[in-house]
Amino acid sequence: MTDFAHTRALFELPEGVVYLDGNSLGPLPKAAAGRVMRTLRAEWGEMLITAWNRAGWMGWPARLGERIGRLIGAPEGSVMVGDTLSVKIYQALAAALEMRPGRKVILSDSGNFPSDLYMAEGLIRTLGQGHELRIVGPGQVADALDESVAALLLSEVDYRTGRRHDMAALTARAHAVGALTIWDLAHSAGALPVDVAAARADFAAGCTYKYLNAGPGAPAFIYVAPEHLPAVRPALPGWLGHERPFDFSPGYAPAPGIGRMRIGTPPVLQMAALEAALDIWEGVDMAALAARAEELTALFIDLVEDSCPELSLVTPRAPARRGSQVSFRFAEGYAVIQALIGRGVIGDFRAPDIMRFGIAPLYIGEADIRRAAAALADIMKNRLWDRPEYRARAPVT
Amino acid sequence: MTDFAHTRALFELPEGVVYLDGNSLGPLPKAAAGRVMRTLRAEWGEMLITAWNRAGWMGWPARLGERIGRLIGAPEGSVMVGDTLSVKIYQALAAALEMRPGRKVILSDSGNFPSDLYMAEGLIRTLGQGHELRIVGPGQVADALDESVAALLLSEVDYRTGRRHDMAALTARAHAVGALTIWDLAHSAGALPVDVAAARADFAAGCTYKYLNAGPGAPAFIYVAPEHLPAVRPALPGWLGHERPFDFSPGYAPAPGIGRMRIGTPPVLQMAALEAALDIWEGVDMAALAARAEELTALFIDLVEDSCPELSLVTPRAPARRGSQVSFRFAEGYAVIQALIGRGVIGDFRAPDIMRFGIAPLYIGEADIRRAAAALADIMKNRLWDRPEYRARAPVT
Repeated sequence: MTDFAHTRALFELPEGVVYLDGNSLGPLPKAAAGRVMRTLRAEWGEMLITAWNRAGWMGWPARLGERIGRLIGAPEGSVMVGDTLSVKIYQALAAALEMRPGRKVILSDSGNFPSDLYMAEGLIRTLGQGHELRIVGPGQVADALDESVAALLLSEVDYRTGRRHDMAALTARAHAVGALTIWDLAHSAGALPVDVAAARADFAAGCTYKYLNAGPGAPAFIYVAPEHLPAVRPALPGWLGHERPFDFSPGYAPAPGIGRMRIGTPPVLQMAALEAALDIWEGVDMAALAARAEELTALFIDLVEDSCPELSLVTPRAPARRGSQVSFRFAEGYAVIQALIGRGVIGDFRAPDIMRFGIAPLYIGEADIRRAAAALADIMKNRLWDRPEYRARAPVT
Repeated sequence: MTDFAHTRALFELPEGVVYLDGNSLGPLPKAAAGRVMRTLRAEWGEMLITAWNRAGWMGWPARLGERIGRLIGAPEGSVMVGDTLSVKIYQALAAALEMRPGRKVILSDSGNFPSDLYMAEGLIRTLGQGHELRIVGPGQVADALDESVAALLLSEVDYRTGRRHDMAALTARAHAVGALTIWDLAHSAGALPVDVAAARADFAAGCTYKYLNAGPGAPAFIYVAPEHLPAVRPALPGWLGHERPFDFSPGYAPAPGIGRMRIGTPPVLQMAALEAALDIWEGVDMAALAARAEELTALFIDLVEDSCPELSLVTPRAPARRGSQVSFRFAEGYAVIQALIGRGVIGDFRAPDIMRFGIAPLYIGEADIRRAAAALADIMKNRLWDRPEYRARAPVT
């Protein structure tokens, strides 16, 4: 069993906390504070405007994109950092639809993250060409792929259930009917061995604040398969995606490669934190990490199912069919999660009844899993979730 | 003469530097490092995912929007922070075009920032309804406004020349022909007394890393006139602009007010720096600041014109017609700026021949202006710009 104690030591984890919500926001890398301070004081503070060149800020989105690319099997020059995941999904989908002008269907599933669906809805409205967003159950995707489909837009790992799609198989099936694929890697990048090139994905996008641990509101990334890049005329063509942004010419001309997917001025402080977060991934063997995630998720499932018969597992049992996450269904799940947080075990809740536990071996070990399962067992056995302080729902602000 | 020494003391300014490029990137507020560290360590590090509620991150885009709103004359609930300026311009323009379905012209001018024009071009392509982007000279805008115009898209202050449009007059003229206005406040917010409500602007957007000093890649803001808000169905409808984002429902429904202009997860570290930057503005009298800017820009013009006959002023002489910036034209402007930087006077250059000097009284005083003008005079008199080290152009990366 590979030991990830060396990477765990690279994170600030509060004393007494078992953190099973890295699928929502990864913890703070110890090096992040120093890295961000350097950018604040020595770069912004001292170099001022000249830091865009002298500190290399202008090149960070591409350089960080290369580093993320290595974690998702993307060839050099095919990943760019910037904006939010929703915006990157929009750009990818717009490009895909433009490449399939005769087709009107965007196929997605009910396990996709809602923002992806909203952005698709928004794009359909703006295009005004009668496109249709067709949403099927996760198990019906393969059968729903036909020659009306322009683009298949899916999250590889379901944010609620942790169910994992077979990216390569669905992409092959999409290609067989002439459709393009856009994969949302929000719950995949840094959680699983992703290989967008081997899977022949056409487009992909992801965020960096979950399993990549780059901090709240860290920028997203976009992947465009190199063979598509020359034809992509980006939606949202901002000045930093221009061929020669500093010519300030009135007409847009796309940058030669993946640079064209840039829009505006990138968030430098967030990128500094992202850089520190990516340092941790140097030398991490993704296959070993995935094997460890498989062990830890299996252990958590076993322990919880043994002691909490009221909870129903919604995550697939077959390891290849799940992400680095385990979810259980329980009507009073909200209160159970509050009771767990009260005991220092942080998971989260997704309406109406799903309790999610993200299991990131980079900083979570067997002792954490046992402690979390024991706390959950105690809460269930003693119906501690029934206390008013856990049932009261805080308004989401 | 109002003394801004008290605000100057709130910035980290490198010893020996006269910083006249705050129109590109404002300097580091002394409080920013501590504020960002608190968010990194005490919020992200300690509270982890719970910081979205416990530290209030979820509400920051609206709260920071209110604070910016007070600097630009926006009523409560009409400004939202997030994304980049280009993205916010896109959202504003898309909303305006949708409100004028029968009209096909977007009117802008050659003094607008190119990214705004590129985003308009991109929107026109995505809409595919035969809209036209009509670009006229800054002096021709009023005459070019006719009943074919759906939206007037302008930067109030020209990023190159510093020329300032009359926002109220052009908005009135646009309204008289039934057009809507979108004002880019990149070089206005924090530089001038802006009053979007009094000017009856329909939409506005700006960035916070120039005169507002929120740091490299700080988020943008968008203003929507309250009377338009209920009808705005946002382009780029991300989950955080949803009425109930945490319901995760598959269909989009806009948040009741300006919240609908949110898209994805906001950049929390950048917002922490923005908060520190906005603290400096508490108690700053915008009228006094503008009066001081008028004095300092006039002084710089006088000093430079007296001693550098080779340079031609491109910024309007009438104080009401310029922003907080002075620009001169000179064929070898690039080399002059390099020579100035070599002497600790930081201005910048915009192709083909414009030298820009941003003058922000918040941290620039009379002594700085005199020192900058003297350095410029010496460089011009002794043709120091002709040295090879200043003429060699660094590749923009």
